[in-house]
Amino acid sequence: MNRNNIDIKGIGEFFKNNNDFLILTHKSPDGDTLGSAYALCESLQLYGKRAGVICSDEIPKKFYYFTEKIINNCNTENPTVISVDIADTKLMGSLKEKYENKVMLSVDHHVTNLYFAKYNYVNAFSGANCENIYEILVNLGMPINKNIAEALYTGISTDTGCFRYSNTTSKTHLIAANLMDYGINNSEIDRIMFETKTKSKIALEKYVLDNLKFYFNGNAAIVVLEKEQTEALGCSDDDFDGISSITRCIEGVKVGITLREKENNVFKGSVRTYEPFDASDICKRLSGGGHARAAGCEITAKKEDAVKKVLNSIEIEISEKNIKI
Amino acid sequence: MNRNNIDIKGIGEFFKNNNDFLILTHKSPDGDTLGSAYALCESLQLYGKRAGVICSDEIPKKFYYFTEKIINNCNTENPTVISVDIADTKLMGSLKEKYENKVMLSVDHHVTNLYFAKYNYVNAFSGANCENIYEILVNLGMPINKNIAEALYTGISTDTGCFRYSNTTSKTHLIAANLMDYGINNSEIDRIMFETKTKSKIALEKYVLDNLKFYFNGNAAIVVLEKEQTEALGCSDDDFDGISSITRCIEGVKVGITLREKENNVFKGSVRTYEPFDASDICKRLSGGGHARAAGCEITAKKEDAVKKVLNSIEIEISEKNIKI
Repeated sequence: MNRNNIDIKGIGEFFKNNNDFLILTHKSPDGDTLGSAYALCESLQLYGKRAGVICSDEIPKKFYYFTEKIINNCNTENPTVISVDIADTKLMGSLKEKYENKVMLSVDHHVTNLYFAKYNYVNAFSGANCENIYEILVNLGMPINKNIAEALYTGISTDTGCFRYSNTTSKTHLIAANLMDYGINNSEIDRIMFETKTKSKIALEKYVLDNLKFYFNGNAAIVVLEKEQTEALGCSDDDFDGISSITRCIEGVKVGITLREKENNVFKGSVRTYEPFDASDICKRLSGGGHARAAGCEITAKKEDAVKKVLNSIEIEISEKNIKI
Repeated sequence: MNRNNIDIKGIGEFFKNNNDFLILTHKSPDGDTLGSAYALCESLQLYGKRAGVICSDEIPKKFYYFTEKIINNCNTENPTVISVDIADTKLMGSLKEKYENKVMLSVDHHVTNLYFAKYNYVNAFSGANCENIYEILVNLGMPINKNIAEALYTGISTDTGCFRYSNTTSKTHLIAANLMDYGINNSEIDRIMFETKTKSKIALEKYVLDNLKFYFNGNAAIVVLEKEQTEALGCSDDDFDGISSITRCIEGVKVGITLREKENNVFKGSVRTYEPFDASDICKRLSGGGHARAAGCEITAKKEDAVKKVLNSIEIEISEKNIKI
């Protein structure tokens, strides 16, 4: 079912008929929401409109290379509000109350989009929302320059794990090819996005490797991240990004589990699997849930007992599915 | 200067006029040489020719997903030899003597190619040699199926660091887009190529993180990999791939140095930098050389003295270039 009530041509009319645009990103902004917002903002400005970007949270410094060049010149009290990469008004953070009923146009790529705007343009076949923004700009003949291309490339590259995730399509690469022709510095962008790690993140990775334990003939790897110890490393929530996937990267490991202590004796479990193990089944037995390859659960127990519960669920998985280990 | 003495049309004639092809890869085979060889081999077979692949070294298991499907059906004593991704006959390894004077066609993308074959087709504007093979197959209307597309994607993805390196071009993405249309499993391929690590590699990474030392206000990071200790971890040469770049991934680090002890008190130094540090200048003062961002040197000294020599060269770099640290 297509619940879109505006097409690209309609968006063109919408841009023509308004003059002051305020573009809203989601909270904890990432490359895709910021890339979408700043690319659209600069293109609208070059098209002769006034526009600005707004976000409930601070913009991480690593995105400054494309965000800093844009100055908000939309200074009216009643701007035309556009949201980008926002599936649900909850994701507006502290700006929810002010804007949830004021969004005129929403451009998004999440299949879970709640169609909260007056006009909704949702294309979930796009790996990144920046693919949607690119298609809108190109089809309307709106301006694209190097900075806009770098913003769009950032969104596409980050949301597809640098073209690795299964949401990458032929279209993703075609758009990347076109963006490369604007002379973007893809290797520098990807270095900033993927290669640079904080010292506390490095310390956390080291902690994971130091504390990793193997079970079931190397098929399972479990690491427990104790609160007191990770706090002592100075880790922020950002540092935990991607940490759960480390366990599954090791040769032979088909079930990787990270137990992160959120409060005293309360562990958030992240389970990552490869076939034939099912992360969702493993977590269901621990009152959690999720997908076959990635699932989660919460366990309240002492560290040793939390590990035992997880091992027990994996043992049932192995025996029920006759998995050879 | 273009020293090519054959174009794609000429290659088409060459394929037509011969029937038994033996395709040679370089030693220590990687994704690009194997992708080139197996894609060309299968396409020639589907085109009605007999063909096989030969390599001086064993093919790493991780490539079996595209190599195992191809059976060598070229069984003549005097095959028509094609080399792929080989810039210099030295790279033929133990097969050099037998084949160095027998290569009829060489398809390569290295600017350093020595034009050792009868017919040489070198396009150094291609990030991966698989881009050249793709262009040859497409322009000649030769068969491409899913397995061929997966072989070609593997070469392109591995030689461009999954589209991150500066050798990635608009053409690279265009070809990837076309290969995606054959239904290739890009996320599984990139997982195998980039995410899976051996236990000894994990142990080595841990060793690096444990032994990393920072200097010059966090601008430089140095790690010494001692022979006895890395041997005790069970590390193979493969495990050292990419290890030198770990040092430069840390926030704030602009010079990352890995000193790997090859023999007792002989250290191979790998220097990776960001601006304004110049790796080539740092290594020149240590009788080495290379590029601005990546260079190398060899230091014969006790561990402590080797580190001192490196620190001294960095200190000169900082003072000569007035670098603020």
